[in-house]
Amino acid sequence: MFQCIGYAAQEATTPLAPFSFERRDPGPNDVEIEIVYCGVCHSDLHQARNEWQNSNYPCVPGHEIVGHVKRVGANVSTFKEGDLAGVGCMVDSCRECAACKEGLEQYCEPGFTGTYNGPAQKTGENTYGGYSSHIVVDKHFVLRIPENLDLAGVAPLLCAGITTFSPLHHWKVGPGQKVGIVGLGGLGHMGVKIAHAMGARVVLFTTSPGKEADARRLGADEVVISKDPEAMAAQAESFDFILDTVAAQHDINAYLGLLKRDCTLVQVGAPEKPLDVNVFSVIWRRRNFAGSLIGGIAETQEMLDFCGKHGITADIEMIPIDQIEAAYTRMQKSDVKYRFVIDMASLPKAA
Amino acid sequence: MFQCIGYAAQEATTPLAPFSFERRDPGPNDVEIEIVYCGVCHSDLHQARNEWQNSNYPCVPGHEIVGHVKRVGANVSTFKEGDLAGVGCMVDSCRECAACKEGLEQYCEPGFTGTYNGPAQKTGENTYGGYSSHIVVDKHFVLRIPENLDLAGVAPLLCAGITTFSPLHHWKVGPGQKVGIVGLGGLGHMGVKIAHAMGARVVLFTTSPGKEADARRLGADEVVISKDPEAMAAQAESFDFILDTVAAQHDINAYLGLLKRDCTLVQVGAPEKPLDVNVFSVIWRRRNFAGSLIGGIAETQEMLDFCGKHGITADIEMIPIDQIEAAYTRMQKSDVKYRFVIDMASLPKAA
Repeated sequence: MFQCIGYAAQEATTPLAPFSFERRDPGPNDVEIEIVYCGVCHSDLHQARNEWQNSNYPCVPGHEIVGHVKRVGANVSTFKEGDLAGVGCMVDSCRECAACKEGLEQYCEPGFTGTYNGPAQKTGENTYGGYSSHIVVDKHFVLRIPENLDLAGVAPLLCAGITTFSPLHHWKVGPGQKVGIVGLGGLGHMGVKIAHAMGARVVLFTTSPGKEADARRLGADEVVISKDPEAMAAQAESFDFILDTVAAQHDINAYLGLLKRDCTLVQVGAPEKPLDVNVFSVIWRRRNFAGSLIGGIAETQEMLDFCGKHGITADIEMIPIDQIEAAYTRMQKSDVKYRFVIDMASLPKAA
Repeated sequence: MFQCIGYAAQEATTPLAPFSFERRDPGPNDVEIEIVYCGVCHSDLHQARNEWQNSNYPCVPGHEIVGHVKRVGANVSTFKEGDLAGVGCMVDSCRECAACKEGLEQYCEPGFTGTYNGPAQKTGENTYGGYSSHIVVDKHFVLRIPENLDLAGVAPLLCAGITTFSPLHHWKVGPGQKVGIVGLGGLGHMGVKIAHAMGARVVLFTTSPGKEADARRLGADEVVISKDPEAMAAQAESFDFILDTVAAQHDINAYLGLLKRDCTLVQVGAPEKPLDVNVFSVIWRRRNFAGSLIGGIAETQEMLDFCGKHGITADIEMIPIDQIEAAYTRMQKSDVKYRFVIDMASLPKAA
């Protein structure tokens, strides 16, 4: 075991604060990473505050992790000391179920091990995430990072990037298609960039007229203000695919009605309460309403390689870790363009 | 023009009663059918009572029509006098849009012409349905009826049959699959028969323990009482496909959670109010919630041929037409096994 320093919530009602804890020394299949940057996902806040009623404490959030390899186990040949490496939302899975065998660890039937809040496969222990100095992860769950990208902007690719890439890739978005991205936040801004790079015509839906110029800069060919009924009506039945990244309650039927026959809207934002689906929205053009959860490890590597090829990173705002609570407050107001990333050089040396 | 007799609602609040009206003489592409039987669909009741706020009066319902060909136009070579013939929910469509060209007239972009309540393509006129002595329909929308089947039991295939066959066929249900049918009414009992004939293992979900024996007789391999939480939990994540025929409000998440990863639940029952979809129901296993509307003409013919091959008809209760209001009342209480069919020999000779 070796000593790490991180930031943890000790319970749902206390702010995150410095926390000293031990991690395992790397075993034969493990990679130890010295963390350089960690993105701030809305899930971090939900988990730290126990908003999903399943948090384990102490809670060290963070699953958008990039850094440098420090030590590797005897069986690790794909990484060596000093290499760039990344870790996303998962650090283990059963490796034996049909989903794992198909490379879809995110749908592991017994459940994958989250990078934080566990529970770890086999032991059931809590896991500590990327708001920390180091992390030790089985090589299967460690990603290679393209050398040509800004490293801080890569961190959010490990969750926001793969969460949007995976459905766009699975439903075969590409040239000749008209694709809608609903919402321009952490997920939505990645969706715009990736769908654009895949060659689709991208239409960004937002409630905020002020986001139009930014959306176009990020790759949107068109911006529709979703509060404008005429602008929405003009888009009826014209989309090959829609990716909905909005986590707040909203009228999903307004978007289902924009799909062509036999086409799909995928929800990746996760509103707490159910969405009202008018069945005629799906019956009339045999439309599909689907969901998608992050992405598998092989697909995450494919996403990173794709982003390297197309020069895609997240638009970020860097913060020192002692600003995390202020960042959460701003994130709740959607006041960030478009992802906070923590500079781990700001960690204290001791808790 | 020639004189027909039928049963019509003159307004939303008056009972159906004898009604005398004219139909066009068959043009070059038309087939005139002397109607023998007409099934009673829940839509008939909705339309007669203006429950969808779009009814045109007089309203002659009926879109599960079988009978004998009486006259054909000069360009009709596929039917001759005396042949069995059927008409379903559509009597025309634009024939020019992408959907029509793909044989998916039910998704005609300008909208198909309903067998009753029109509005007719081009003229916008009202159309009169199968609660009548005769009907005149363009040959493209006239179906061939297998000679080996009980004719009264064939009538409901034209709506209830195709509405269930089409999604089972489109989503490729077959041997080796476990398929759920939700609800055992007019649609559900056809779904059980057809999915069974397609070679799937069929599980029928019902709120009524009294329907178990009947469901097994119709082809269900297993019956689950959906009010029993333990019985539902035992089915978790085990279905390749679910067809939901329930038109009342119900908990759709209870069924979405029974699907395997990447599988689909198709809603064909149409509750008036939206259904609450918990997005985690679709996100966790990348599941799909879809809809489906009747079926195209070619697929309807395929369904009839399939039913002929497998000896499938609807289980019906025959009524004289003067019992239609009593039948509606019983249908509202789901008190029919499983479809009323009107014997057109019971029509009066004059209104």
